[in-house]
This record gives sequence, C-alpha cells and structure tokens, in this order.
Amino acid sequence: MPAERYYHSSPFAPGGEITLETNEARHLVSVMRGNPGDCVELFDGRGHLAQGQVSTIHKKRGVTIEIQSVSFEALPVRTMTLYQAIPRSNRLDTILEKTTELGVTTIILFPGARSERSNLAPNQQARAQKVVVAAAKQCGRLWLPRIELAGPIGSWDPMDGDIFFGDIDASAPRLRNIEIDKERPVGLVVGPESGLTHEEEKVLRASGAIGVSLNHNILRTDTAAIVGVALLA
Amino acid sequence: MPAERYYHSSPFAPGGEITLETNEARHLVSVMRGNPGDCVELFDGRGHLAQGQVSTIHKKRGVTIEIQSVSFEALPVRTMTLYQAIPRSNRLDTILEKTTELGVTTIILFPGARSERSNLAPNQQARAQKVVVAAAKQCGRLWLPRIELAGPIGSWDPMDGDIFFGDIDASAPRLRNIEIDKERPVGLVVGPESGLTHEEEKVLRASGAIGVSLNHNILRTDTAAIVGVALLA
Repeated sequence: MPAERYYHSSPFAPGGEITLETNEARHLVSVMRGNPGDCVELFDGRGHLAQGQVSTIHKKRGVTIEIQSVSFEALPVRTMTLYQAIPRSNRLDTILEKTTELGVTTIILFPGARSERSNLAPNQQARAQKVVVAAAKQCGRLWLPRIELAGPIGSWDPMDGDIFFGDIDASAPRLRNIEIDKERPVGLVVGPESGLTHEEEKVLRASGAIGVSLNHNILRTDTAAIVGVALLA
Repeated sequence: MPAERYYHSSPFAPGGEITLETNEARHLVSVMRGNPGDCVELFDGRGHLAQGQVSTIHKKRGVTIEIQSVSFEALPVRTMTLYQAIPRSNRLDTILEKTTELGVTTIILFPGARSERSNLAPNQQARAQKVVVAAAKQCGRLWLPRIELAGPIGSWDPMDGDIFFGDIDASAPRLRNIEIDKERPVGLVVGPESGLTHEEEKVLRASGAIGVSLNHNILRTDTAAIVGVALLA
C-alpha cells in the first residue's frame, strides 16, 4: 500500500491547498495519527496523484494539505466491465473490493430475476463508493471504477467487446482455457446466488455473450465475480 | 446448493440412525425449521454422502436421522495446497470459504516473517473448520480440505509437485500465462499483507518454487489466495 494516501474528489494543482473531506480527515487524524508537516499522497480517482504536506489540523475547519506536485496517469485503454446481479451487502463489499484490486473499470449492478435484492438504497450506494475508494488506495490504482445501477437483463444497451457469463452447464468451456484478446473491451455477467434464469441466459446469448465455466464446483456469486474478473484481467 | 445438507463427522451406514452434532442440529431446527419426516442429506467430509430422513427432533436428545442410502466419491487424485501466511480473521474466513469452493485440498497456515499474527487460537481453529464445512456444503464437495498449522518458511518439509508463490517483482511471469500440468500436485504460497521477505523468497526459490505475478496491481493477501487457487484449479 502506498504509505499514506487520501482520496479527494475535487481537482488539485501544485502550490494550491485543499481541505480533506470528512471521512478522510477523520482517518488521517484518528487512525493514522497525522500531524502538521507529514507528507501524504492524494488521489482524485480520475488519474491524478498529488504529493502533499499536512499544513493544519483544526477540529472545526478540518485538515488542510498543501499540494507540492501532481502527476497524471491516463485512463486504462481497455474497459473491463462486471455486470453483477445485486447480492447481499457483505458479498457486495467483497466483490467491490476484490474486483477493484483486479482492475475492473465499470461495475454495473442489476436486479437478476432470482436476485434476493432488486436495488441499492442511497446509503448502500455511498457505502459501495467508499469500498472502491479504500480498495483503490490499497492497490495503488488511480482511476476509480465506475459503479452504475441498471435494469434487468433484457433492458440493457448493447454491450461492447467480448462478453462472458457464468454458466453452470457441464458443456460450457472453462474460461481459464479461452484465449482473451487483451486489446478488446471485455465484460463478465454474474448472476445471483440462485443463478441466472434460462430466459436471462437466452437474452445474453442472443446478444453474443458466451457462457463459460469458472470452476468444476458451483461458485457463490462473489467467488464467481472475483475469479471471472481475475481470468479476464 | 444441495437442498439441505448437514455435516456429520462419524461414519454412517444405510439403515442406521445418527444424532446430529449440536451446531448442525441447531441449524436444522432454528434456521431450516425442519420437521420429522423431512428428507435431508448428510456428508462426512471424507467422501460419503447419505440420503436420510429426520426421525425425531427432541430438545434434549437432539435430532436423529435415519440413513436411507450412502454413496461414496473418491478423494480427488490431484492435491492442491495453499500455504497461507496467517492473516486477520475476517480475511482468513474469506480465504477458507473461497478456496474451499475452488477445490483446494490442503490449507497450511504459517507465520510469515511479516505476519500480523503468528498462530491460531483453538477457538479460531474451530471456527476455521466451521467455515470450510459451510463452504463444502454450499458448493457440494464431499471431501473437506485439511487445515494444518506449520512453522515459518524454512522449517517446512519438502513440498510436493509444482509450487508457486506470489511475487510482486515486475519481471515475474503471470500465473495466468503458465501452462499448469493438471496431473501433478500443485501448491501456492501466499505471503502476509506486507509480503514475503527477501529471505523467505530465497528459501522458496531454493526449494524449487517459482515466483509468479497474479495481477498488474498488488493484491491483498486474501485476493491473492483466491485468484491464485482459481488459476491452479
């Protein structure tokens, strides 16, 4: 993990000063026991990484950081999209954390026909964003994955690139054995714990998606998402 | 998930009757709301699967099940071993659950030089066993992975088969691109969150292990274990 990295959503420029957002300020003060003069890193989730120094820590006005230098990393050229049937929230946390580490660029959450949940409440959306920020800090990536909510399979716009979906049919080829074109966008559709319905699979196949096996055992939805994205990365 | 499957560690035979162990009995009564006459499955974690029927549910004497038939599945021929530096317990749970689903046959927990923890207390060992039992039920496997505690790297017996370890060196080959001989035993060594030391890597290399990269990002220890085992399975 980069020594001490904080997320700041608005732009920063060398010589300027920013005030850390509440959660991040709390982390710097209470967890990291930061002090004025400490060197820290800032990232904005859109490719910018800044070196900075804590200038003031003030109970009410918060933590201010002086920006010393800013570097930029281009957006990854290849998009890797996870279409994930909305799972229970502990499994969603695992999926968001792990697939962020593994380099997913977009996470589209949709209600599967057999999903236990059909939507994410606003506080759950905020939590999801926090999880991907923490994972991005951890693994050092500078672009946050985008998290989107979608309608059910069948209501989607055409998907771009090579799309796979987890298929428990014994005749499905193992994703491990498929050569992945690393130049093309890629996507993986993962159903809920009880699986995709026959109808959902039909719609996916009609759109060009390929059913694949991820393991000889049937995997939980979060295991399938992690393993599938790892194989496509 | 198989409809309703319970774990029972002692042998069972057709026509016989068994009394469910405490946790499993509680699950049948309180969670699954089981009743006498219900059909259930039992597995012993050593390849046996029984079809049975609940005969009595008694507060003190527990739940008895009449065994109707027993089938047997041979031990997987190929061993797949995860050598995991002991992580924090929430990450250990994730590792145990996911790698059990993915077919690991042995999990050896060891104190890494930079591990946050150097041992598992007896209650944590019992918890680990419960997690793999739950995961085995979930994915339908009939043999439980063995969980063992080992000393530090350097004190180990020679490892059998093709052994890989997570290596963050940029020149390490991607495990995804290595052809795995599915006929041979295979193992993966995963270091703690702060990584293996240079000394530990030297010992592993001297024993024939190959350093591999799992992703272009640096992964958390639990993500590395899941992804690595998925690639070897």
